[in-house]
Amino acid sequence: MSSEFASNLLENAVNELSRLPGVGRKTALRLALHILRRDIGEGVALGQAIIDLRRGIKYCRLCHNISETELCQVCADAGRDTSVICVVENVKDVMSFENTRQFTGLYHVLGGLVSPVDGIGPDMLEIDSLVARVAAGGIKEVIIALSPTMDGETTAYYIYRRLRDYDVNISQLARGVAVGNEIEYTDEITLGRSLLNRTPFGTN
Amino acid sequence: MSSEFASNLLENAVNELSRLPGVGRKTALRLALHILRRDIGEGVALGQAIIDLRRGIKYCRLCHNISETELCQVCADAGRDTSVICVVENVKDVMSFENTRQFTGLYHVLGGLVSPVDGIGPDMLEIDSLVARVAAGGIKEVIIALSPTMDGETTAYYIYRRLRDYDVNISQLARGVAVGNEIEYTDEITLGRSLLNRTPFGTN
Repeated sequence: MSSEFASNLLENAVNELSRLPGVGRKTALRLALHILRRDIGEGVALGQAIIDLRRGIKYCRLCHNISETELCQVCADAGRDTSVICVVENVKDVMSFENTRQFTGLYHVLGGLVSPVDGIGPDMLEIDSLVARVAAGGIKEVIIALSPTMDGETTAYYIYRRLRDYDVNISQLARGVAVGNEIEYTDEITLGRSLLNRTPFGTN
Repeated sequence: MSSEFASNLLENAVNELSRLPGVGRKTALRLALHILRRDIGEGVALGQAIIDLRRGIKYCRLCHNISETELCQVCADAGRDTSVICVVENVKDVMSFENTRQFTGLYHVLGGLVSPVDGIGPDMLEIDSLVARVAAGGIKEVIIALSPTMDGETTAYYIYRRLRDYDVNISQLARGVAVGNEIEYTDEITLGRSLLNRTPFGTN
């Protein structure tokens, strides 16, 4: 056979599929052979959905959330509280907070975290545009909703320093024991914080 | 937000991706967001490769291997020994045997194994077409190269019964200790077979 896969079409599909995260060449081949076994309509629908996704999705001019229009569904919603901005790492986090149905303000998607190890500086993230939104006025509170990891804390502190001279309240997510987790398996730093920031019984 | 994903394009891509084997909705979302982060050309190339694959791949008229033409690359190769047929379960097994570079004959891809548990009968596989190839003459040997599993053994025995009255040698793959495996972890049936079918020292 001229190629490893008996077919250039198959080889090409395997090459493209194996660029996906967590997909090696063996998995890519398994996926390609699965696609071949199914109806032609199903394979074409998958391919077309990927093309339409990549061609059709824009980013919100204001908050950088994904959107099919210039303003995303959240920013365009007249019912949202425009005085509160929740700063998140990525688009997935927007979905997570929306799923809680607890937040009625707007978002600001950074597009990543400051990470000296990975060579990601603040200028590579949407931080200037966040400062600009605050500087433009009308914002009462900025909630920094980043993961409590090394990179998350670094980014949070950097944003705090950029915003602290503006007339805006800066808050962060409560740290504590995750609901459903056992005390026995919760790390001591989290336990210490949950003790320090304890709330009156029955409030949460 | 009107949909879980803030975008119908994203929701559609997640739906299609999650039809792939081993891909749940969380993984599908992760893949979709990965595609969005990369160049537009990369996403379109992936989608187009899948469409081209599904639209362009045919099956070889003779051996049922995948092919872009009526005869696959193996069957069309004038250098192959047309008197030997290696019977395999699927297209992937053809690739595995081709990778050994030890086989110069032709293949016959069954498209599965007889499996009473899964309701797959012999008539749903390419067994009649195998018998027809043998009946047409010119075949000296049929190597049954199926997995030594319950379904594999059932299928092998069924094929043997269908072919035994023809003037053709029927062989099967050697059973024995897999290269690189330790005796300690090899099952006793395999060990028994490897003892029974031992070969002169130095021959393999």
